[in-house]
Amino acid sequence: MSSSESQDPAAASEVQLSKKAAKKEAAKADKLRRRQEIAAASAATANLSVDEDDPLAANYGDVPLVELQSKTPANVDDWTPVEALGVALENKTVLIRGTAQTIRPVGKKMAFLVIRDDYFTVQCLVQAQPDTVSPQMVKFAASLNRESIVDVEGVVTIPTAPIKGATQQVEIQVRKLHCISRAMPTLPINLDDAARSEIEIEKAIQAGEQLVRVNQDTRLNFRVLDLRTPANQGIFSVQSHVSNAFRQFLLSEGFREIHTPKLIAGSSEGGASVFRLDYKGQPACLAQSPQLHKQMCICARFGRVFEIGPVFRAEDSYTHRHLCEFTGLDLEMEIKKHYFEVMDVVDRLFVAMFDSLNQHCKKDLEAIGSQYPFEPLKYLRNTLRLTYEEGIQMLKDVGVEIEPFGDLNTEAERKLGQLVLEKYGTEFYMLHRYPLAVRPFYTMPCYDNPAYSNSFDVFIRGEEIISGAQRVHVPELLEQRAAACGIDVKTISTYIDAFRYGAPLHGGFGVGLERVVMLFCGLNNIRKTSLFPRDPLRIAP
Amino acid sequence: MSSSESQDPAAASEVQLSKKAAKKEAAKADKLRRRQEIAAASAATANLSVDEDDPLAANYGDVPLVELQSKTPANVDDWTPVEALGVALENKTVLIRGTAQTIRPVGKKMAFLVIRDDYFTVQCLVQAQPDTVSPQMVKFAASLNRESIVDVEGVVTIPTAPIKGATQQVEIQVRKLHCISRAMPTLPINLDDAARSEIEIEKAIQAGEQLVRVNQDTRLNFRVLDLRTPANQGIFSVQSHVSNAFRQFLLSEGFREIHTPKLIAGSSEGGASVFRLDYKGQPACLAQSPQLHKQMCICARFGRVFEIGPVFRAEDSYTHRHLCEFTGLDLEMEIKKHYFEVMDVVDRLFVAMFDSLNQHCKKDLEAIGSQYPFEPLKYLRNTLRLTYEEGIQMLKDVGVEIEPFGDLNTEAERKLGQLVLEKYGTEFYMLHRYPLAVRPFYTMPCYDNPAYSNSFDVFIRGEEIISGAQRVHVPELLEQRAAACGIDVKTISTYIDAFRYGAPLHGGFGVGLERVVMLFCGLNNIRKTSLFPRDPLRIAP
Repeated sequence: MSSSESQDPAAASEVQLSKKAAKKEAAKADKLRRRQEIAAASAATANLSVDEDDPLAANYGDVPLVELQSKTPANVDDWTPVEALGVALENKTVLIRGTAQTIRPVGKKMAFLVIRDDYFTVQCLVQAQPDTVSPQMVKFAASLNRESIVDVEGVVTIPTAPIKGATQQVEIQVRKLHCISRAMPTLPINLDDAARSEIEIEKAIQAGEQLVRVNQDTRLNFRVLDLRTPANQGIFSVQSHVSNAFRQFLLSEGFREIHTPKLIAGSSEGGASVFRLDYKGQPACLAQSPQLHKQMCICARFGRVFEIGPVFRAEDSYTHRHLCEFTGLDLEMEIKKHYFEVMDVVDRLFVAMFDSLNQHCKKDLEAIGSQYPFEPLKYLRNTLRLTYEEGIQMLKDVGVEIEPFGDLNTEAERKLGQLVLEKYGTEFYMLHRYPLAVRPFYTMPCYDNPAYSNSFDVFIRGEEIISGAQRVHVPELLEQRAAACGIDVKTISTYIDAFRYGAPLHGGFGVGLERVVMLFCGLNNIRKTSLFPRDPLRIAP
Repeated sequence: MSSSESQDPAAASEVQLSKKAAKKEAAKADKLRRRQEIAAASAATANLSVDEDDPLAANYGDVPLVELQSKTPANVDDWTPVEALGVALENKTVLIRGTAQTIRPVGKKMAFLVIRDDYFTVQCLVQAQPDTVSPQMVKFAASLNRESIVDVEGVVTIPTAPIKGATQQVEIQVRKLHCISRAMPTLPINLDDAARSEIEIEKAIQAGEQLVRVNQDTRLNFRVLDLRTPANQGIFSVQSHVSNAFRQFLLSEGFREIHTPKLIAGSSEGGASVFRLDYKGQPACLAQSPQLHKQMCICARFGRVFEIGPVFRAEDSYTHRHLCEFTGLDLEMEIKKHYFEVMDVVDRLFVAMFDSLNQHCKKDLEAIGSQYPFEPLKYLRNTLRLTYEEGIQMLKDVGVEIEPFGDLNTEAERKLGQLVLEKYGTEFYMLHRYPLAVRPFYTMPCYDNPAYSNSFDVFIRGEEIISGAQRVHVPELLEQRAAACGIDVKTISTYIDAFRYGAPLHGGFGVGLERVVMLFCGLNNIRKTSLFPRDPLRIAP
């Protein structure tokens, strides 16, 4: 591609036929220049597919590396996003950059390309025509590998019949076609296979057909390809939106964003599930949550804080909902008197978040739903609150016996979720006043019965996503509780000391970003909502 | 504090004198109830300072733990923030919660308290008066330790002379005083000492006086106290604002927020400065940056991404600007043709951020400046761009010789910053087209001279804060460059493979959050802008 073209790529196609001679001359000069550049270009770009005897050779080919090394600044407005291609652009010449999703030659004189850009696709026709499109250019188009990145210049036309294989209802009559980056001929995952829903596969089986089903491990091994499916693009747009809704709500309520250290002396909150490492000769570990430091920020009179950051759990959990590294959304706040003040924030925050997702992520939720169908989350304007005792009574009433001072197992959580949905019409609710024995040492016991605690869990679609509580702010009680929970108080002495300088009443909660996305979208595996998941068996890519 | 009081704490003070008898009865009942509760309360709250023979005992004292264990929900609007205390509230009864910053008894009948809440302080007078304030209550006030947290109820009055020791120009005539959390009698750091500016200390020395100077290590050892100074409160408000300005600008330009893994197989980008650990029996390390994974997101067709998260460097750097763990602000984006497209984003993003800080963080910047004086950052509406060659020529012109294909050392960077400020009037500028040899292996070489690269650094006040570049998107060249830089290509094979499936032209940059805050505020040490800093000698608190 010559630099003059790139400055105004639309201009070239408006050249009159009378200027044919001049054009040929320009092409010739361009060819010469290209030859010189090709010679200069590195081995990486040796596979240029241009027929040098073609007088129209300037209209297509692999772009030599030198042109891609910031040789000339671009006017980025020269490119039209595929999303913007519509009937209003009829007969206009446009330049688009995108991924060659499908390449379909029809004889030697014609090839169809479908170009993808974000969620949007457009059909492009490369058809041999005297003076504009040479048969060699058609051959070049047909030779492209799927998933290669191309610049396509052409005229927008409106086809008489609807286009089935693309989102945009216009077609581009290609005049120029340049490949920016070639994909390898055979990809480890076929995108069509990766994007297919289970329903389609089942239908095909019933029709006696066999379609490829890409399993989870293969997807994760070639995650860079897997992530290109519309469903995955949707999942990570939703993920980005969840963080942002979380943050914007909290900033608007006077919270400050903090960044606590992930490298911790000793053993964080204790327990076996901690990654240990050597820190300049000192034993250290990775924080299992920002718990201790976010509370120390409260002791430092930060008032209201939140953090979005990685948390590390060296657990041997092989479930659909556990990861060894995930993104924690954490919050800690002063309270005046009661842990309900924290639950009030959960309530308003999540209702606002769900509303925002439904309003602003329609396209993303559709993309997810078309591969992994799900029902929109049912939630109330004021989130239902049940005590743990009420919860286990509901279970008891249908014959499920729960140890009154134990915890709910996954099965019981699901069952309770069903019962709550039937009785209250919501898939999002809070359970509070948990038995103290099943909560961390820093949880404040109840005023009237120390077998219970000022704590809560929050559930979406029958699975726990949030754990929160009022915290113990009295250093003596904190020491006592830590010791009772088998924690060596010496290892957390700086944390406990933080409460000796005057400590506000406070509470907070933590929630896993990946779980929120998984459960809001009704997905069946947390690995689907982590970019590059880490579980006991996987630390790559 | 009884539950009826807490429901409507203002009501009690409006009681008529004729209701004296009823009040005494209530106080008596309250006292009885309190006695029972005190007996029930845990050892942690044994040091109650209430004189039980005082008929006004209900008006003051340590709040027993049971009252702080979410016994009764509060109406949080019952409390007035100290910031809101002004002349409009004259003669009104208010309830405030805050930190007892200073406690000054005057004889046995009077005590002054200064209560702090955020940046704001108010003077409170506890003066013995029949029927409202007993001498025992004055004694209780005088016995409070600094930094204890208290609830103060009283009547707002306007003093005749201006109040010097507090921000609010009203005084509270205290009617009730309850301590929520007692600080220990002698704190490891005195807040007044920690908040003092170097100028004040110097002035005192000149006046023959000796004031305590709290050194950096002591501050960090007792960070929870140190963080309570106005300057530190300001620093971490600015930090929160920087992240948010970064994010909001990028979201508005179509970027998605991502979370890449911090646990990496092998050795991240290589080199010695990596923290290693065992990951379920596999060798692993902590990511030195999100570089490889954010580029893989570009290969996954994410288009434009950013991340805010911890990065880990096991470097033995003991400078004022290095940490072993800091918060990276990272960005990666497709480009059409030129790395200037990335620099354009840097330009608009940072000008918008600086504008936003100056506009929205006035109070915070003042708080910082009053302890650590600094001049507002000088920056242009369109950020200056110089090539590396131009930069070293400027240095050469004043006699500073730089190795043309080497890097600038800290001293040269500072000198160049001075020269640029003198010539162009800006303390924020970009230097681009760096020698390839001083950049990471994934940096794209220049089209016309492979000794240079399509890279840039950005400087604030003569110190580098941002490193960015166009990246190599051609797998063969990437392998070649990695090998040339001494990296074992096998250890980054999944990264390199990501470019074999069609890879967009792209570029990006990374910047340390703590450095941005440090340099914007002209601070002299990065440990001041990290909540709980980690350096080769420090991994606690």
